[in-house]
Amino acid sequence: MVSNITTPLSETIEIPVRSGLGFKLEKGQFLTVIDPKGGQVSDLLAYNAQDPKEVISSGRTLDYASRIFLTTPDPLYSNRSNVMLRIVEDTCGRHDFLLTPCSKDTFRIIYGDKEPHQGCFGNLAEALQPFGIDADCIPVAFNCFMNVRVDGETGELKVDPPTSKAGDRIVFRAEMDLIMGLTACSALQSNGGSFKPIHFRIDDHKR
Amino acid sequence: MVSNITTPLSETIEIPVRSGLGFKLEKGQFLTVIDPKGGQVSDLLAYNAQDPKEVISSGRTLDYASRIFLTTPDPLYSNRSNVMLRIVEDTCGRHDFLLTPCSKDTFRIIYGDKEPHQGCFGNLAEALQPFGIDADCIPVAFNCFMNVRVDGETGELKVDPPTSKAGDRIVFRAEMDLIMGLTACSALQSNGGSFKPIHFRIDDHKR
Repeated sequence: MVSNITTPLSETIEIPVRSGLGFKLEKGQFLTVIDPKGGQVSDLLAYNAQDPKEVISSGRTLDYASRIFLTTPDPLYSNRSNVMLRIVEDTCGRHDFLLTPCSKDTFRIIYGDKEPHQGCFGNLAEALQPFGIDADCIPVAFNCFMNVRVDGETGELKVDPPTSKAGDRIVFRAEMDLIMGLTACSALQSNGGSFKPIHFRIDDHKR
Repeated sequence: MVSNITTPLSETIEIPVRSGLGFKLEKGQFLTVIDPKGGQVSDLLAYNAQDPKEVISSGRTLDYASRIFLTTPDPLYSNRSNVMLRIVEDTCGRHDFLLTPCSKDTFRIIYGDKEPHQGCFGNLAEALQPFGIDADCIPVAFNCFMNVRVDGETGELKVDPPTSKAGDRIVFRAEMDLIMGLTACSALQSNGGSFKPIHFRIDDHKR
């Protein structure tokens, strides 16, 4: 909801239950995303701060990795095939890069909700709007701690509870100046049936 | 290369080897994509003709289908969760919706080419430019006949030769007025080691 345009260095910031934040991350800085209670997903988006039409791309990243599951030391590529971020530490080891942020439509179509929450999509749209980024420019997010299983034969996707335990973290190094979006995910299914906060920290040096 | 802004009805049009076309498809019309020789991939993109910021979305579509492999009667959703196209006929049954169109960078990064071809990405960018659609707005394409296998345990992606035989086709019904991009794919790996044309046809009624 709130957009922290300047984010204090090395302070742990809480993203409250079912909300999202936008912030800047400078080239060379480290972003640590922490699951403080375990079993909670955080959707991550990245845009080139100098030219936000350059955006994180699942299709490019998965193609170059030849894998759908990413971890250290995998790079996350942009739609222009530049490296935006690198995963430099990962105590969980299971994340998703197939699905778009949950939205009003997700809750309407998948959950049948009559008065659906705006979801990570709505939260990210609000958080990125002060940076001039339009909701239409929200692609597939890198979903930290999201546990999506794929049946290689049938192609069936199953969203299982995250395998992350309390305190698990994934650390990214920025390879360009970035505008970031980050959420504490709003979809029951992704989080094993409950909503929890997400913590993050920005450091100039890797701890 | 050429952009057929007006596309003759019910005439079979050839997309030459390693090229692409842009064209309009009206709500209710049927687009038939044919693999004339077998074993050839065709990348498909769709944009709302009235507002091209609305674009085909792999993340939305796979999430709502809960499957990575799509066939009849699956809908293809936009980034705004509207149905753009429905698959109404499919004689092949294996297509991909995970990977972005091959590009100069694909050939540089994956194939190590020194003077890389512009690929489906470059071909689509050229074909869509007359419609005011920017290269940065090319997302993950629906890759007709592309045979990407996923290992559910390791997450490994493997691009196998298409299973399509000569004459196989996939037919889509447009659920809104669309700007389409369509290619005869330029990546050796996707097409089992050779390049072939793609045929397509637009009909007012399903044949």
